[in-house]
Amino acid sequence: MQNPLPHRLSLVLGGARSGKSRYAESLFTEAPGPWIYLATAEARDDEMAERVREHRARRGSEWRMIEAPLDLATAMSEAGETPVLIDCLTLWLTNVMLAETDLDVEIARLLQALEETPGPVVAVSNEVGLGIVPDTPLGRRFRDAQGRLNQQVAAIADRVVLMTAGIPLTVKPQYAGGR
Amino acid sequence: MQNPLPHRLSLVLGGARSGKSRYAESLFTEAPGPWIYLATAEARDDEMAERVREHRARRGSEWRMIEAPLDLATAMSEAGETPVLIDCLTLWLTNVMLAETDLDVEIARLLQALEETPGPVVAVSNEVGLGIVPDTPLGRRFRDAQGRLNQQVAAIADRVVLMTAGIPLTVKPQYAGGR
Amino acid sequence: MQNPLPHRLSLVLGGARSGKSRYAESLFTEAPGPWIYLATAEARDDEMAERVREHRARRGSEWRMIEAPLDLATAMSEAGETPVLIDCLTLWLTNVMLAETDLDVEIARLLQALEETPGPVVAVSNEVGLGIVPDTPLGRRFRDAQGRLNQQVAAIADRVVLMTAGIPLTVKPQYAGGR
Repeated sequence: MQNPLPHRLSLVLGGARSGKSRYAESLFTEAPGPWIYLATAEARDDEMAERVREHRARRGSEWRMIEAPLDLATAMSEAGETPVLIDCLTLWLTNVMLAETDLDVEIARLLQALEETPGPVVAVSNEVGLGIVPDTPLGRRFRDAQGRLNQQVAAIADRVVLMTAGIPLTVKPQYAGGR
Repeated sequence: MQNPLPHRLSLVLGGARSGKSRYAESLFTEAPGPWIYLATAEARDDEMAERVREHRARRGSEWRMIEAPLDLATAMSEAGETPVLIDCLTLWLTNVMLAETDLDVEIARLLQALEETPGPVVAVSNEVGLGIVPDTPLGRRFRDAQGRLNQQVAAIADRVVLMTAGIPLTVKPQYAGGR
Repeated sequence: MQNPLPHRLSLVLGGARSGKSRYAESLFTEAPGPWIYLATAEARDDEMAERVREHRARRGSEWRMIEAPLDLATAMSEAGETPVLIDCLTLWLTNVMLAETDLDVEIARLLQALEETPGPVVAVSNEVGLGIVPDTPLGRRFRDAQGRLNQQVAAIADRVVLMTAGIPLTVKPQYAGGR
């Protein structure tokens, strides 16, 4: 890879344990550091603490970690031209919904920050809409909000990658198809 | 796009809020109208009414809307050679299962109508099988029925598109692969 | 197809009722039999018994069926150079987790067997991580374990295919992308 981060904004989508974070991190490894790791996770419970530990163990010393569970926009503007990994939009969305702030306002702020960033920025997000309809109104509301957010970020990203079992599939720029 | 609907039968698959309907509608916009929008939704509850309102606001005046919650086959035969958008097979399947009519008979009627239509027809459907096993027998039964229906429609479609975060990926005709 | 099984190890991934088993079986049909069908299913309940019946009805007489709900590694070593279909890793993982043996040990044994097999081997597995977060700790644990296992098998496979509505999409070897 000569230029491992040729894209201003990349979105890495996938299911749980699909290798999203690892792949997103790998996009940085051949570029000169330092890089900023914007962590949206808070170590609130044991499962999450374990995940944070794993991510930390995998990352090298070139990474500077900034916790930004809610205010990604400000954290991004402070990053300036340093390459940024956002991990992940799904936890950020969860945090914002739990905080009961105005979701539309927060999403608009995030999208503006993503549009204005000089980049490179790589954002990780979960695809959560491919199961049956969730049982609860909250589950359905979250699923819809995540789907909308993914669409909005994908629309302004110049690269979108779908992960399956650790394998990246580039869906944007689009494959021209077999027609 | 010179010929925006070169396919007799297209299937647009994707998760919730993946941009399926919007993409399916976009396939029509450069063809001369009028087009028929076969709506399988009934405005039974608030969540659904909201979705129907959104879809309506997005569609222009070239669309003629026909509600066909159960009898898609008859509605399609009445459409003749007018381009038809079916939105969506997932709600239709839900309606048929709730109506407790003979599911196999209804699916056979639909498939026959799809095979015999002169087209162009674009059908939207949800992919619902990519989560963990549903808790309830009804959930599992629905998931299996939807998966089977998607396979059957995909088999007779000449174009199948998988949506991810608003981005289409053409899976049929098949990409030849890197082998 | 001149050489229908040119790959040592293939992984066929997909959701429920996505046509995984049928496609995996189709990879064998133009190769000379006999082939071994390693079934991880046990006919414990009615739903499962029905699925096993369907699979059996579809398979021809060239298939020799071996039930291996738990010890896939030994079954594979006994297969030698006979082509093997493993259907499926998801049920195997379920069986191992229910048996409360050491999951890490069992996975390590399976991966070693997959690495050492002369092949050809085609393994079927479910993608289960694309819905919202499961309600229960067990659901989350299973989803994580399945995701990790799929990544590990995909990493050593020379072909990975993602099924959608019966249509295969080859994700490994990778499509070079439109960049």
